[in-house]
Amino acid sequence: YAPTRCAAAQTSTEQSILPPCHHHEAVHDPQLVPCTCPLFSCPWEGHLEVVVSHLRQTHRINILQGAEIVFLATDMHLPAPTDWIIMHSCLGHQFLLVLRKQEKYEGHPQFFATMMLIGTPTQADNFTYRLELNRNQRRLKWEATPRSVLECVDSVISDGDCLVLNTSLAQLFSDNGSLAIGIAITTSKVHNAEAEM
Amino acid sequence: YAPTRCAAAQTSTEQSILPPCHHHEAVHDPQLVPCTCPLFSCPWEGHLEVVVSHLRQTHRINILQGAEIVFLATDMHLPAPTDWIIMHSCLGHQFLLVLRKQEKYEGHPQFFATMMLIGTPTQADNFTYRLELNRNQRRLKWEATPRSVLECVDSVISDGDCLVLNTSLAQLFSDNGSLAIGIAITTSKVHNAEAEM
Repeated sequence: YAPTRCAAAQTSTEQSILPPCHHHEAVHDPQLVPCTCPLFSCPWEGHLEVVVSHLRQTHRINILQGAEIVFLATDMHLPAPTDWIIMHSCLGHQFLLVLRKQEKYEGHPQFFATMMLIGTPTQADNFTYRLELNRNQRRLKWEATPRSVLECVDSVISDGDCLVLNTSLAQLFSDNGSLAIGIAITTSKVHNAEAEM
Repeated sequence: YAPTRCAAAQTSTEQSILPPCHHHEAVHDPQLVPCTCPLFSCPWEGHLEVVVSHLRQTHRINILQGAEIVFLATDMHLPAPTDWIIMHSCLGHQFLLVLRKQEKYEGHPQFFATMMLIGTPTQADNFTYRLELNRNQRRLKWEATPRSVLECVDSVISDGDCLVLNTSLAQLFSDNGSLAIGIAITTSKVHNAEAEM
């Protein structure tokens, strides 16, 4: 694997606590979406079908393929705010994993991880993603329905509706400053059946 | 199930952030342990074998039996600090589940859940516990080795080496103010092998 680790360009703490998220208001053509890369304030907008190639070419975000993959986020010690981003190609779709280090409470950085479908909210409802950490005789699993990249990743993270790790837990799961995140995507029919049991 | 919900008696935030944990220093007989109930400053001490009956009789903590149980913590809206406690009888041992609502960061209560074996650290190494939340198409699982009640539950929680939930996530997993926590205990064969070496 060749993971991409991108440091967020912005350094304003206020900005990361109260993310702007006004992109959508500027989009008049409902077929057009803004750049979904949370790293940069990128003026690009285009159709959903070309978001992946934009992320690859402009932001150099790698794609990992397979039903179950492991993303290695390196340099976890980097100061907040920092984002780690990878695309995951699976079941005929592309998903965006966003791992963010952010100080919701000053002086106490936390890690937030979520997956977004590069597709519509209706398409996203068909899937379940699982993030798994496994080290030092501890295991943490988070399963949820991915959000669509048409929604705002900042609000998902500020709502805390994602995998949340405090610094000490992140260290327990890290190996030499790197965090290995197991990622799996399934269609949500399996998830519904399990939930009924 | 008839879950017990106990509100912590102490209201000092400072005390909950910097737990005293000086119990052990006062114990000169290594066979004697202090009361392991984190709810009250209880002067009781006794042998490990009678901790369970002390917790039942003095602190009225219920015991649930079975390999996999569900503990329903009610009134999650109660202000921090609050503890929810249950004993779990399984595999010939008794475990103590501690769910604590605490404000590590002022104004931002979080929930911390961990399991302690009512036994020695060496015995605790033989087991793995799993806590699982499952609601609203989200699932969160935490697996770890239980600590011994001879260790301090306050330090486990202040270290964050446990299941940690922010308020919004706790609400997503709650139903009408109650949080259902699935609990399972298994033996960890790796640990057994290590213990025999």
